[in-house]
Amino acid sequence: MSKYIIVNEDFLPAAAASVLITDLAIQRGYGIFDFFKTIDGQLMFIDDHLDRFFHSAAEMHLPVSKSRAELEALLLTLMDKNGLPDSGIRITLTGGYSLDGYTPAAPNMIITQAAFKNPDFNAEGIRLITHEHQRQLAQVKTLDYLMAIRLQPLVKQQEADDVLYHYNGTVKECPRANFFIVTQDNEVITTANGILKGVVRKQLLKMSNSRFSIREKDISLEDLRQCKEAFITSSTKNILPVTAIDGQLVGDGTAGEVTTELAEKFKELIVQYVELR
Amino acid sequence: MSKYIIVNEDFLPAAAASVLITDLAIQRGYGIFDFFKTIDGQLMFIDDHLDRFFHSAAEMHLPVSKSRAELEALLLTLMDKNGLPDSGIRITLTGGYSLDGYTPAAPNMIITQAAFKNPDFNAEGIRLITHEHQRQLAQVKTLDYLMAIRLQPLVKQQEADDVLYHYNGTVKECPRANFFIVTQDNEVITTANGILKGVVRKQLLKMSNSRFSIREKDISLEDLRQCKEAFITSSTKNILPVTAIDGQLVGDGTAGEVTTELAEKFKELIVQYVELR
Repeated sequence: MSKYIIVNEDFLPAAAASVLITDLAIQRGYGIFDFFKTIDGQLMFIDDHLDRFFHSAAEMHLPVSKSRAELEALLLTLMDKNGLPDSGIRITLTGGYSLDGYTPAAPNMIITQAAFKNPDFNAEGIRLITHEHQRQLAQVKTLDYLMAIRLQPLVKQQEADDVLYHYNGTVKECPRANFFIVTQDNEVITTANGILKGVVRKQLLKMSNSRFSIREKDISLEDLRQCKEAFITSSTKNILPVTAIDGQLVGDGTAGEVTTELAEKFKELIVQYVELR
Repeated sequence: MSKYIIVNEDFLPAAAASVLITDLAIQRGYGIFDFFKTIDGQLMFIDDHLDRFFHSAAEMHLPVSKSRAELEALLLTLMDKNGLPDSGIRITLTGGYSLDGYTPAAPNMIITQAAFKNPDFNAEGIRLITHEHQRQLAQVKTLDYLMAIRLQPLVKQQEADDVLYHYNGTVKECPRANFFIVTQDNEVITTANGILKGVVRKQLLKMSNSRFSIREKDISLEDLRQCKEAFITSSTKNILPVTAIDGQLVGDGTAGEVTTELAEKFKELIVQYVELR
């Protein structure tokens, strides 16, 4: 953890940062957040993340006490005080100190920063198990990870790394990442509906061109069985191959060609983003 | 709020009770709780509530550091220190101070007490609006009230008092109460599946006899339209008539005869419970 954490107006030593137990996050799990990386001191895809942060807050009727400009200034001050050019920053907005444990009050905003190194491409990939579940309010980045955390022992027991949700025959997402397949025709597809729309996912959809067709379209369980490659995307993981699902290898069980090439292209995009700011 | 709150081993002044922001309740909304009344110093239906508390904890893989006897002793000490014979007590168990913001750690247990007077029967009742939603892990009393709290402005706008969830054509529950109908044949029915099984609901089902048939069976939306009376049950509200649903009166829009008689019988049950302990 970093030296300083912001709780509302205050920069607090990380070990001392606390909230009263009347906060609606503790009472009712009520709140939203967003998370992004910094690389070489640059706030990665910050416009997309702040768009989503303000969208999530509005969807949950949580007023943000700071303007976007004030929030950006606060983030830069935190960067300065903590001296961590390569990091992950999380902005959490809770339901606040509720008088009756049910009605939202003025939200508490908590901003944490932790050292985090942008990972290299991991060709070994990860193994998923599937689980039938549709996240509630999927398009909002809420605090709700009940199902994901409850499933952790099962994931471990199945010798897997993470969970892939599906519902009513459609593949959805991982708890903290979007999911993509590469079809036998080399089409790159990610689920369109009932998911949180990730920032890396958005960047990837913009990379669709004559060489790669990358688009959103609901993925059926049959599509999943037939796919040639699979990968997940997230702000911490970038593009990460999925090499097995429910114990069955995807393709030959190693990172596929399209996945590897897209990961390379995304790495270039990150380098450009950092250099051009 | 009371004078003292318990956080793990400590009795803290209520205004000072806090948890670090690394708690998994704040990071991921992860935790469970239970809530019960005290009347004249008696812990109401405490066996049922502790059964459910330990069940919820086990379902979410959260170890409880105290035995049941230790927990009961702790509750009595809290009662003693706070001097509130008529109260509501809440025991919360969170995912603990997670090192990575995702993996559960040793849970934090928080016990709060607040003055609360057992309410008289409210013949005026309440108005509900319906909303299509199935609570995840419905049989576990988790911290997740995202949907309920998000819907509060809509409830107010519709001049109603609370929400009734239904899903796939079946009536479920209110966010903090079970739901019952009285059919045209004077059968009393409460939804069987996809709900949190409340303690007052359980007591009521035990009251089924030759005079009243009270049973659990899934209630369809058509059953809802046809019903003669409706009411909700909860530890804070006991039996409370529902007099309108989505702006349509239930029966003649006042507390029905069966509801009123059951409320009277439940009041007697409470008196007996308090006197016999």
